[in-house]
Amino acid sequence: MSLLTDRLQPPGGTGWLAWLRHYRRSWLGGDLTAGLVVSVMIIPQSMAYAMLAGLPVQVGLYASLLPLLGYALFGSSMSLSVGPVAVTGLMTAALLAPLATSGTVEYLQLAIWLALLSGLMLFAFGLMRLGFLANFLSHPVISGFISGAALLIIFSQLPAFLALPGWPQGLPSLTADNLTVLLLGLGSLTWLLYARRWLAPQLQRLGLAAPSATLLARLAPILVVLLGILLSIWLDLPSRGVPVVGEVPAGLPALALSLPELSSLRALLLPALLISLVGFVESVSIAQSLARRRRQRIDANRELLGLGAANVGSALAGGFAVCGGFSRSVVNAEAGANTPLAGVLAMLVIGAILLTLAPWFAWLPLVVLASVILLAVWPLIDLQGLRQAWRYDRAEGLTLLCTALGVLLLGVEGGILLGVGLSIAAQLWRGSRPHVAVVGRVPGTQYFRNTRRHLVETEPQLLALRIDENIFFANSKAIEQAIAQALEDYPDTRHMLLILSAVNHIDSTGLDMLKELTEGLAERDIRVYLAEVKGPLMDGLEQTDWLQEQVGEVFPSTHLAFNALGDPHRAASKIK
Amino acid sequence: MSLLTDRLQPPGGTGWLAWLRHYRRSWLGGDLTAGLVVSVMIIPQSMAYAMLAGLPVQVGLYASLLPLLGYALFGSSMSLSVGPVAVTGLMTAALLAPLATSGTVEYLQLAIWLALLSGLMLFAFGLMRLGFLANFLSHPVISGFISGAALLIIFSQLPAFLALPGWPQGLPSLTADNLTVLLLGLGSLTWLLYARRWLAPQLQRLGLAAPSATLLARLAPILVVLLGILLSIWLDLPSRGVPVVGEVPAGLPALALSLPELSSLRALLLPALLISLVGFVESVSIAQSLARRRRQRIDANRELLGLGAANVGSALAGGFAVCGGFSRSVVNAEAGANTPLAGVLAMLVIGAILLTLAPWFAWLPLVVLASVILLAVWPLIDLQGLRQAWRYDRAEGLTLLCTALGVLLLGVEGGILLGVGLSIAAQLWRGSRPHVAVVGRVPGTQYFRNTRRHLVETEPQLLALRIDENIFFANSKAIEQAIAQALEDYPDTRHMLLILSAVNHIDSTGLDMLKELTEGLAERDIRVYLAEVKGPLMDGLEQTDWLQEQVGEVFPSTHLAFNALGDPHRAASKIK
Repeated sequence: MSLLTDRLQPPGGTGWLAWLRHYRRSWLGGDLTAGLVVSVMIIPQSMAYAMLAGLPVQVGLYASLLPLLGYALFGSSMSLSVGPVAVTGLMTAALLAPLATSGTVEYLQLAIWLALLSGLMLFAFGLMRLGFLANFLSHPVISGFISGAALLIIFSQLPAFLALPGWPQGLPSLTADNLTVLLLGLGSLTWLLYARRWLAPQLQRLGLAAPSATLLARLAPILVVLLGILLSIWLDLPSRGVPVVGEVPAGLPALALSLPELSSLRALLLPALLISLVGFVESVSIAQSLARRRRQRIDANRELLGLGAANVGSALAGGFAVCGGFSRSVVNAEAGANTPLAGVLAMLVIGAILLTLAPWFAWLPLVVLASVILLAVWPLIDLQGLRQAWRYDRAEGLTLLCTALGVLLLGVEGGILLGVGLSIAAQLWRGSRPHVAVVGRVPGTQYFRNTRRHLVETEPQLLALRIDENIFFANSKAIEQAIAQALEDYPDTRHMLLILSAVNHIDSTGLDMLKELTEGLAERDIRVYLAEVKGPLMDGLEQTDWLQEQVGEVFPSTHLAFNALGDPHRAASKIK
Repeated sequence: MSLLTDRLQPPGGTGWLAWLRHYRRSWLGGDLTAGLVVSVMIIPQSMAYAMLAGLPVQVGLYASLLPLLGYALFGSSMSLSVGPVAVTGLMTAALLAPLATSGTVEYLQLAIWLALLSGLMLFAFGLMRLGFLANFLSHPVISGFISGAALLIIFSQLPAFLALPGWPQGLPSLTADNLTVLLLGLGSLTWLLYARRWLAPQLQRLGLAAPSATLLARLAPILVVLLGILLSIWLDLPSRGVPVVGEVPAGLPALALSLPELSSLRALLLPALLISLVGFVESVSIAQSLARRRRQRIDANRELLGLGAANVGSALAGGFAVCGGFSRSVVNAEAGANTPLAGVLAMLVIGAILLTLAPWFAWLPLVVLASVILLAVWPLIDLQGLRQAWRYDRAEGLTLLCTALGVLLLGVEGGILLGVGLSIAAQLWRGSRPHVAVVGRVPGTQYFRNTRRHLVETEPQLLALRIDENIFFANSKAIEQAIAQALEDYPDTRHMLLILSAVNHIDSTGLDMLKELTEGLAERDIRVYLAEVKGPLMDGLEQTDWLQEQVGEVFPSTHLAFNALGDPHRAASKIK
């Protein structure tokens, strides 16, 4: 699962902590800038995603410390920034909802255990080199899941804009207090939208260099948070009924590790597996797209170790599940991060803020965090992906759509399991409808093509069939039927040549079908021959009675088979 | 799903009731003999399988009437004989055990409804042409299921030999009564074993023609039943504590149809689906192997209709689920059955016996029926199938074994579902480990072979890779990795040729991988080309941005690609 490599650039090279052992002073500037920029950027995000997870905001900050160190020790990406993200926040909330009530001590404990279990699982998968497990989440399933999750998140945040307790519970008459919240929310949304679209170009027009302008614009959320706090203190918003964060303890979290009892462990196993798989797939795809730009290499098994250590670290400091985040990683890369040292520096900055400024966050109106969430997840709704998948293959478009709807209607677990089931079913369905072509020779060449698509020569007693699919239980009847049909179409057949260039394996159901077919044909004095059997398939077939006793001959090429089995008296009998 | 046909022989031809519309007088003799022989043969079997199903013995006889007519009206086989078989008996008992107690009126009613539902399902599947559904039961799953079921049946019959109430409940001290039962059982087992092995040759030595001798030997079970009844009356076995059938009502069953209420309906849906699928697969495979000998044609969708009508017929007359039986169908064919008229005649004979002799069956010791069951199911344990599957492919051997163990440990439903899951997983697992070969030209030819298996010529700047698997979510990472590895092995590559002769489809996950790969290679000045793309795949790829914008060229053959992309100044650069 490695990407194309470039050997010239050492960071991202192989070996544990290679970046640290070969650290160059010239990388320090970039790492320092990136550490500072990213830490400032992720403070509002971390608090917002903790809120999304149904947890106190400081838990998001706690989850932004040790994960950065854990990933730096084991991960293979030079740019990936791990921490709380929207998807882990939502999954934590959705997976824990049936087990405990948000806001209770028990709920927080379960969230910490979920991170711990997920971390241990990821680390174990890494040690066992099970990175391939993530391959069973196909792109339509991931895309459908993310879109469905984004919609769920948006719905969950709408009540915050009207200071409603939950959604949907009918609209109350708007009071002045609610109006204040709504205005605050719309104001911060407008500012964030403006910053995303127009701030960078305007800063450039004011004379800033393009990269700095882009970076500054990315920090818009911290500005809206600071403004929100100032406004809240100035106008005493809490006393006007505006919900605020309320009491954030100053100081670093105490490190603690408690193990779940058996009943919680059992209830958390499937949730931990799902959050691990989704987090891993997301992180690896972000890491790979960033590594590709710099021609670096990502090692999936080291990513498992890195994410595992990150989640265990998060749990140690009382945080919730983390994974690599897209926007924070992009900012990290753009700000010049050369190595995971940037992440370690970001950790120190956030730690310093926790020690000093944390109590001020108590004044922050919740609606400001809700607007940060809305803006962050809106682009995750992947309508273009749906259009593309639908156009390329209806079954995949349907899988994507059903996964998204499944997440919305059945919940996070149901949606993912439905999607995986559908993508396996679609794959079987495709395999169960094999293409079988009667082929003939392209005149004057050694090439053979489908008689229905090309003008080719056939031999009257020789029926050459190309089977365009692995032969297995789901399609062996269909292949048998296609062969019987071809024999009806060519009643003079004495030799039947099966061209297996596209057959990579034959299972025992398929082999039984071929045996019975060959037997039945033998009674009609039709002999079966093979051509273009590939090495690995031949290795398996060589030991079977079918090949040893029933099959006439195995030709290395269709051309040689035509020469041997065709009518020697006339080279080209008819053109179809 | 049709077999190879022969147009010379009208029975088994196409069209509804073609055999009746074109009936010839010359067929009547064979049909009459077969009808008589089969009816005499299936009377003990039918009663025994009813006992196995936990039902009164006459229910087995009731299930041997209308099914023969129903199948004659719709089925497509000229030789298949339908009725109660060991597997439907066992499945009825196993599937109903959680719902009711054997021996109660409720249990009998559920058994009848199970046959009704299964019949309606099969008929509906036939109308919807859903015969392909049965393809998802792979041969290892069927073989494992049958072996597991046979073992279950044998275990279930052992207590009858010791007149024990159930198994395993510890061995009681042997009383004289128990000893009588045991002796009776061993006696009838010995006779049946003797008849199977040596009776036919001995009859031949006594002057009988070989076919008649074989047929007579097949009727051994009715002899043991008659002997059992006579012994039972003579020695008054019931008064000695030997369990006998007890009270069999004389006369034909009353036709009645009652529909299940909703709760029973829901509980019976999955059982009915499973019994339908298994019965259908068994029947079709028996019908096909018999049809092949006579060069007749089986139509899977008409088989669905025929079996559906048979089960509805069974339910109408108060019988349980039926399907085609192996031994009864073989005897039917051997006795000369030309058309399903033989079945209709057998129905009349059984009807006549019910009207006249039925009360005598009351005296029959149960242990005789148990010995009939034992002898019938013993050959179903398919150790050779396990050996073959294991030798050909470990995964399939494991699937077979797990299905058999699943049936024994988890029950009939659990075993089948486990088997289907495993065979799908095995198929995915095979697909997830694709073979990717670097190919070169066989000197002096237009053929290209794996560089690791053959002495071939390669071009220094041209890397030709043959991908031997459909590209889909479960293997796209592995294929990406194999390509990256090949590029490391051939660092001078400027042109990468992907030979897609064995790729029948590419899903959107695979397409995304190819897009990203091509992008990454473009940055390293390596261009991607395709060769030998098949028609159906090309139809799909033609609309993608990848093919239109990123891929260099699509060559019809590897040979032409080598001519175009290879170094023109030296035809054969090196031999590997």
